Amino acid sequence: MRQAYDEQLAEVTDGLVQLADAVAVAMNRATTSLLDADLDMAESVIAGDAVIDSLAQDLEERMFELTVRQQPVASDLRSLVAALRISASLERMGDLAVHIAKAARLRYPNQTLPPELRNTIIQMGQIAQEIVNRAGQVIRTRNVVAARELQAVDERMDRLHRDLFGVMLARDWPHGVEAAIDITLIARYYERFADHATTIARRVIQVVTGEAYIDIPKP
Amino acid sequence: MRQAYDEQLAEVTDGLVQLADAVAVAMNRATTSLLDADLDMAESVIAGDAVIDSLAQDLEERMFELTVRQQPVASDLRSLVAALRISASLERMGDLAVHIAKAARLRYPNQTLPPELRNTIIQMGQIAQEIVNRAGQVIRTRNVVAARELQAVDERMDRLHRDLFGVMLARDWPHGVEAAIDITLIARYYERFADHATTIARRVIQVVTGEAYIDIPKP
Repeated sequence: MRQAYDEQLAEVTDGLVQLADAVAVAMNRATTSLLDADLDMAESVIAGDAVIDSLAQDLEERMFELTVRQQPVASDLRSLVAALRISASLERMGDLAVHIAKAARLRYPNQTLPPELRNTIIQMGQIAQEIVNRAGQVIRTRNVVAARELQAVDERMDRLHRDLFGVMLARDWPHGVEAAIDITLIARYYERFADHATTIARRVIQVVTGEAYIDIPKP
Repeated sequence: MRQAYDEQLAEVTDGLVQLADAVAVAMNRATTSLLDADLDMAESVIAGDAVIDSLAQDLEERMFELTVRQQPVASDLRSLVAALRISASLERMGDLAVHIAKAARLRYPNQTLPPELRNTIIQMGQIAQEIVNRAGQVIRTRNVVAARELQAVDERMDRLHRDLFGVMLARDWPHGVEAAIDITLIARYYERFADHATTIARRVIQVVTGEAYIDIPKP
C-alpha cells in the first residue's frame, strides 16, 4: 500500500515537471513571437494553452483520486496540497505566456516593441526561461538550496522591470502612450511569471523543511 | 462523526465568507485612498493585508486538519479542494487591493488619477465591491443562479477597462506616459480582482453541479 502510494506520488511529481516543461516552451515561443512579430508563433502559444490547462486538470484529478483512495497521512497530504498549488501556479504561468503572445498578435504586422527596449525584453525572456526551468528542477529534486536561489533570479527580473519604467519615463520617450501601455502590461506579465516560479520554490521549501509559507511582500 | 464533519465544513464556509468580507473592506478603502489621495487610508490597507493573509492561512490549516482527521469521501474532498482554491483567490484579491493602495501612496500628496478618469475608477470600485459581496453570498448560499450572474458583473468591469484605454489612447491625452502607466496597472488590478471573483463563483458552481471547471478565455 505504502509503495503504491509513493509510486503514485512520484507520478504526480513527474506530471508537475512535465507541466513546467510545457510552460517553459510556451514562454519561449511567446517571447519569440513578441521579438519577431511572428503571428504564427503567437497563435501557436494561444492555441497551445488548452494543452497546458488539460495537463493541469488531469494532474489535479490524479491528486484528487490519490487522496480519496489512499487516505494519506498528514505529511503526504501536505505534499498533495503543495502540488495542487504548484499546478495552479504553472497553469497561471501558461496564461501569462498567452498574454504575451496576444500582445504580439495585437500589433501584428507591426512590432510591439520599440527597438531600444528589445534588449531588455530579450533578457526578461531569458530570465523567464531560466526561472521556470529551475522551478521544474526544484519540483523534481526537492533541493532546498536550489529552491532558495530562485529568489535571486526573481530579483534580476524585478531590476529589469524597473529599468523598463525608467526608459519609458525618460523625458525623450518618443513612442507615445500606446507603446507605453503595451510595455507596462508585457513587463507585468514577465514579472508575475517570475513571481509564480518563486512561489513554487517556496512551496517546495515548505514541504521539505516544514517552514511556514511566507509571502514575501514586494516593495 | 458525519454531523461533526458537516459542522466543521460549515465553519470553513463561514471562514471563507469572513475572508470575503475582509477583502471587500480592503478594496473599498483602497479605492477611497486612490480617489482621495488619502495616505493614511492607503497605509491601513497595506498594513491590513497581514490580517487577510493570516485569516487565509488559518482557514487552510483548518481545512487541512479536517481532511486528515475525518478522511472525507470524494464529494466532501471536492468541496475542500474548492474551498482551498477560493481561499487562494480571496488572498490574491487582497493583494490586488494592496497594489491599488500602493499606487495611491506612490503619488501622494498628488492625485494618481487625472480628473476625467475619476468617474470610471469610481465605477470600477463600485463593481469591485459588488462582485466581491456577491462572491461572498455565493460562497454562503451555494446558489448557482446567483453564481452565474457574476459573469455579467465581470463583463461590466471589462467594458470600463476598455473605456479607460480608449481615453488614454485618444489623441488629446494630456497627462503623459507616467499617468498612463499608473492607470494601466490600476485598471489591470481592478480587472483581475473581478476575474478572481468570477473564478470563485465558477468553483462553487463546479462543486454544486459537478460541472467541470472551465476557464473562460478572455478576448
